[in-house]
Amino acid sequence: MNGNIVVGQSGGPTAVINSSLAGVVSKARELGVSKIYGMHHGIEGFLKDDLIDMSKYIKDDSDIEILKRTPSAFLGSCRYKLPKIEGNEEVYDKIFEILEKHDIECLFYIGGNDSMDTIKMLSDYAKLKNKPQRFMGVPKTIDNDLPITDHCPGYASAVKYIATSLKEVIRDNESFGAEKPTVTIVEIMGRNAGWLTAGAALAKGDDCHGCDLIYLPEKPFDMDDFMARVKKLSVEKHSVVIAVSEGIKVADGRYVCEIDAANVRIDAFGHKQMGGTASYLAQKVADATGLKTRAIELSTLQRAGTHLASLTDINEAFSVGYLACQAANDGKTGEMITIDVKSRNPYEVGYSIHDIHDIANVERPVPAEWISEDGTGIEEGYIQYARPLILGQLEPLYVNGLPKHLVLTDEDDAN
Amino acid sequence: MNGNIVVGQSGGPTAVINSSLAGVVSKARELGVSKIYGMHHGIEGFLKDDLIDMSKYIKDDSDIEILKRTPSAFLGSCRYKLPKIEGNEEVYDKIFEILEKHDIECLFYIGGNDSMDTIKMLSDYAKLKNKPQRFMGVPKTIDNDLPITDHCPGYASAVKYIATSLKEVIRDNESFGAEKPTVTIVEIMGRNAGWLTAGAALAKGDDCHGCDLIYLPEKPFDMDDFMARVKKLSVEKHSVVIAVSEGIKVADGRYVCEIDAANVRIDAFGHKQMGGTASYLAQKVADATGLKTRAIELSTLQRAGTHLASLTDINEAFSVGYLACQAANDGKTGEMITIDVKSRNPYEVGYSIHDIHDIANVERPVPAEWISEDGTGIEEGYIQYARPLILGQLEPLYVNGLPKHLVLTDEDDAN
Repeated sequence: MNGNIVVGQSGGPTAVINSSLAGVVSKARELGVSKIYGMHHGIEGFLKDDLIDMSKYIKDDSDIEILKRTPSAFLGSCRYKLPKIEGNEEVYDKIFEILEKHDIECLFYIGGNDSMDTIKMLSDYAKLKNKPQRFMGVPKTIDNDLPITDHCPGYASAVKYIATSLKEVIRDNESFGAEKPTVTIVEIMGRNAGWLTAGAALAKGDDCHGCDLIYLPEKPFDMDDFMARVKKLSVEKHSVVIAVSEGIKVADGRYVCEIDAANVRIDAFGHKQMGGTASYLAQKVADATGLKTRAIELSTLQRAGTHLASLTDINEAFSVGYLACQAANDGKTGEMITIDVKSRNPYEVGYSIHDIHDIANVERPVPAEWISEDGTGIEEGYIQYARPLILGQLEPLYVNGLPKHLVLTDEDDAN
Repeated sequence: MNGNIVVGQSGGPTAVINSSLAGVVSKARELGVSKIYGMHHGIEGFLKDDLIDMSKYIKDDSDIEILKRTPSAFLGSCRYKLPKIEGNEEVYDKIFEILEKHDIECLFYIGGNDSMDTIKMLSDYAKLKNKPQRFMGVPKTIDNDLPITDHCPGYASAVKYIATSLKEVIRDNESFGAEKPTVTIVEIMGRNAGWLTAGAALAKGDDCHGCDLIYLPEKPFDMDDFMARVKKLSVEKHSVVIAVSEGIKVADGRYVCEIDAANVRIDAFGHKQMGGTASYLAQKVADATGLKTRAIELSTLQRAGTHLASLTDINEAFSVGYLACQAANDGKTGEMITIDVKSRNPYEVGYSIHDIHDIANVERPVPAEWISEDGTGIEEGYIQYARPLILGQLEPLYVNGLPKHLVLTDEDDAN
């Protein structure tokens, strides 16, 4: 590679999105790339020519190691979807102008569906206008809903956090026994995709009863059936723990968190915010059963919990970044690195590159056969799929008793 | 010691309450105690003669190691306060009858204020009736409000969890920058004591801006001043993170979570439940500023997060259990083990025993000089107090990608 590179992070952060950044930077350093730029807050920042010189932060391998242990998007993220090319050429011309200004030969974008759409649009535009720059997608999403790739970096660490936290919450919930039966409802992210909530199933094992019920948004939520099941469980057991996806909906299509108008969270723009499903259901159970209930939302903790990241996930996140840079160096463009699982037991993994047009804007739901017939549990097929992904740990680097993170410190970058 | 012993766990669990159990059992094994019993669900279970034979679970040092890494109360807990002796002799006679039936010479109770009251009452009754049994208190509480002892086992691990999670949440909150400023309010346990919320101050360091505001229940909460500060902060910064104690109150004595009737959580017995402070404030900020807001309750996660326990805390929790057993063997009764900090830097710790009458039913608040004048921050004195307590980690024992726990498996015990 003769020119420079730029790498951006986009969408909701994950526990390992910085491992992918570390992968891109590591390969670029190996290749002797002259300038490695980071986009400050993704393509939105790039459009303002807001770039970060990575050499200020990554001087040696120990910086790479801290970067891998840093949660959230080191470079800052954005939620910005490029407009369609037709009629919006000025946006694209602006991007290529900035690329040319900094002699950038390859652009890498670490993200989910929207980010892969960005790579598709930019590579399409380059082809259309005979531009020499190359564009590579690096997969990332806790939602795990990108197609073609077996799974998405970021997903496994969120699942490891969810399953570990559930094991701890279940133990806590059991502590008071028959004298104080408690129903705890834990709300997990994922909007209309149940991948993350399915991860709750991994809590079950020799040392944990697991969740009593698990509800994914892929099947309609039946309130009467739910209440009947909770009542039955609370007679049989002193501790009931239920995992629900934030995006479960009743049969008429309404989100459960929107059934009660008083429960709906409206932002300043009048947009409904996701969340509140667990607290709504917990209050309903309390009213109907007289039991003590508790609602827990794992909120951003589940995507920021790098202290509990899966080593398998960290290594794969690093690899997809590293290999994207290698592929770009080999002349590839308009593609994304995919993870190919050759064997699940023993776990054996490989990587390919795939045309971005098959990936952008396609969402992959949880396979129907992995959700139990009655819609309240997860089948063994999922366990076999997900278990190898959460194996291994990367011990944080503790300073003053807390995990150390790498941060933007330069005054130009930190704002 | 010629007789047997029994040990119980009481009140809200902590991440290290099982380390204290491990300490008692370890010393009793060293002393060659014939039968080591556990109370199934504390004194409440003991009154039903519901005992656990610890030799079924602790066979060697590796079991002790897993017990130390197990969250919540291994034996099960309870919330039961012994009635006053006068007029309730039958309760006490029942307890001593069960002690005699099992040839129990010493009783250990691991808990907070109410549990130390239990030790006081039982040792008083023994003295009154010339009974030979001995009773020792083992301190435990995430609330850190027991007097005499420098701090309470369980507190530091909750603080380590809170500060680590806050560092991660703050990073996540910063990710979208100027285009999507967000105010996140994190709610921390502790009811009327601000010790846990003060722990939020430890998140701040070279790699973290820390919380922008921290509110403890020890000072009245001024809603207008709060709103003015948030508005000012949200102009100056893109990311605002605020820590609030669940028990903050406005000047007229109402809990903030009870100001809005619709927000109050009522259980089946008509009791108000703590919680909802953050969501109430987040909605208020959203309405007034138009900013995106988020409320996060750390809920039971903060007391069950053994995967992130402080090694200092684990070792001290083990020591107070171990030393309680040693003191009982030396003939002591009606006392609690206290932690004495001889030097904070370098950290140097010792242990004493102290008359339970000075401890039971006394609550220690956060010293006023550790709360900033304006009531929105924490002073350096607290940082120096708390920092050494969160140092060190005890890596979980991972099986199938998740921390392994020790559980009651025997059919007689598991119900």
